[in-house]
Amino acid sequence: MDDRQLLETIRDLIGRRETSDDCAVFPIDDGKRMLVSTTDMLHETTDFPKGMTEWQMGWMSTAASLSDVASCGAQPTQILIAVGLDCAERLKPIMEGAVACAKACNAQIAGGDIDSHTELTIVTTAFGIVEKEFYCTRSGAKPGDLVCITGRPGAAQAGLDGHSGYWENLVMPKPQVFTGQRIARAGASAMMDVSDGLAISLYDMGEASDVGFVLRENNLPLLPIADAKKYFLYGGGDYGLLFTIPREKFVKMDVPVSVIGEVVEEPGVFIGEEPVEKHGYAHVWS
Amino acid sequence: MDDRQLLETIRDLIGRRETSDDCAVFPIDDGKRMLVSTTDMLHETTDFPKGMTEWQMGWMSTAASLSDVASCGAQPTQILIAVGLDCAERLKPIMEGAVACAKACNAQIAGGDIDSHTELTIVTTAFGIVEKEFYCTRSGAKPGDLVCITGRPGAAQAGLDGHSGYWENLVMPKPQVFTGQRIARAGASAMMDVSDGLAISLYDMGEASDVGFVLRENNLPLLPIADAKKYFLYGGGDYGLLFTIPREKFVKMDVPVSVIGEVVEEPGVFIGEEPVEKHGYAHVWS
Repeated sequence: MDDRQLLETIRDLIGRRETSDDCAVFPIDDGKRMLVSTTDMLHETTDFPKGMTEWQMGWMSTAASLSDVASCGAQPTQILIAVGLDCAERLKPIMEGAVACAKACNAQIAGGDIDSHTELTIVTTAFGIVEKEFYCTRSGAKPGDLVCITGRPGAAQAGLDGHSGYWENLVMPKPQVFTGQRIARAGASAMMDVSDGLAISLYDMGEASDVGFVLRENNLPLLPIADAKKYFLYGGGDYGLLFTIPREKFVKMDVPVSVIGEVVEEPGVFIGEEPVEKHGYAHVWS
Repeated sequence: MDDRQLLETIRDLIGRRETSDDCAVFPIDDGKRMLVSTTDMLHETTDFPKGMTEWQMGWMSTAASLSDVASCGAQPTQILIAVGLDCAERLKPIMEGAVACAKACNAQIAGGDIDSHTELTIVTTAFGIVEKEFYCTRSGAKPGDLVCITGRPGAAQAGLDGHSGYWENLVMPKPQVFTGQRIARAGASAMMDVSDGLAISLYDMGEASDVGFVLRENNLPLLPIADAKKYFLYGGGDYGLLFTIPREKFVKMDVPVSVIGEVVEEPGVFIGEEPVEKHGYAHVWS
């Protein structure tokens, strides 16, 4: 059983909408704005590669939640951070990294919880606010829309696998909060981050929007490394944004993005006519 | 080093206000209402006594955060829950308990995160909304105010120590969200929950409000067990509310509470003239 199958066992209990996007949503200001929120658990053995500093662990944990807020088109406001510590001395550099990441996104670490734990465990919860008309989710992609990404998916995985020059992509990912807001305001029809890998993110967005995707091989911003296409499709840990947008709205955008294909009616993900495998980062439960 | 000393090492980094209340606060609706939020990490070896069911673990985790929201006088709206699982089968009953607790407080489990972990770890984040004028914190207690509590502190600890009849107080604590709102609307000057124990909560409130407390021995709602006063002052795990309120506002209240003493200028906590020790539940860091 993988994460997605496990989630399926509680979807009816929590609600399908509540379990289908990275952020929860709550209307405020008489429904004119939406409060979005998201929580992410990271811990040492699974999420923090050897060689990372505590400062980077604090940064990465905070970035994980801020990236989800960014994918809604929202401006993050506050972050809560719960830290389970195996050693008290690790707290301060972790919090310094968390504060730095929050500040870089014009957000604030507003509180948290400290606990002792056998394994270093960091859970961040981020809040953000977005005008109702610009609020983006995974559903909303329409046939004919362009499919776009920011950055170069695969870079974090390349860093993990020892490709030189990509370590920082892995340990200090930059949540695209300002770019996300510009994309949302331009009129994106759907948006999410690609932290689980681009291929699985496309499948997730396709299912949520009831559409498929055809990518153009020549338009993919591949890294200059061996197996570049594999990294591009299946590498995890990048916090770039995947979004769809009607053609006529795209022209008005002033954001550095790559148009990698278009939305089609038929479900599935293809590069030209070649189907893309449906997998990405997912823990397998024994 | 205990939790409080560890927190002190990061207070200047995060902000003193941000680290002095159980809830973070953010103004919404043009400043007319406050969004409060709080996060709590619980895990098996430290927080879930042997004999608890997964359903109760889900309930208790959710109650921990809802109790903090209650102590602000706020109505909880949404809860996010991150679950680190040592075994996939535990997820469903945990979520059922969490949903039951949320529903009992008119709140909703709105999302979360699932992770694999060596030790079962549950992190809940709750947020709620309160009108600005009724928003309560630990600071605000004034000399002459009455000191009141809901419930009978010590019951959860009695359950943990094997006193019959108190097991449910321990494993299914009831966050006082509706009572908290009535207390806030009546005009409480300060409020917090007593989950770390009543004595340490009084000291915390006293420091935040720059006041002290004199309790009246005969007014303490002690449990009918041996060492009742010790349980009352130092037992942890109860989610009753401690609050202060001006005398003239108290008369209008329609909530079952015990008046246990009054706020005084001199710092410290006393029962009559006898000083109360400053300790409660606190993890000690080696």
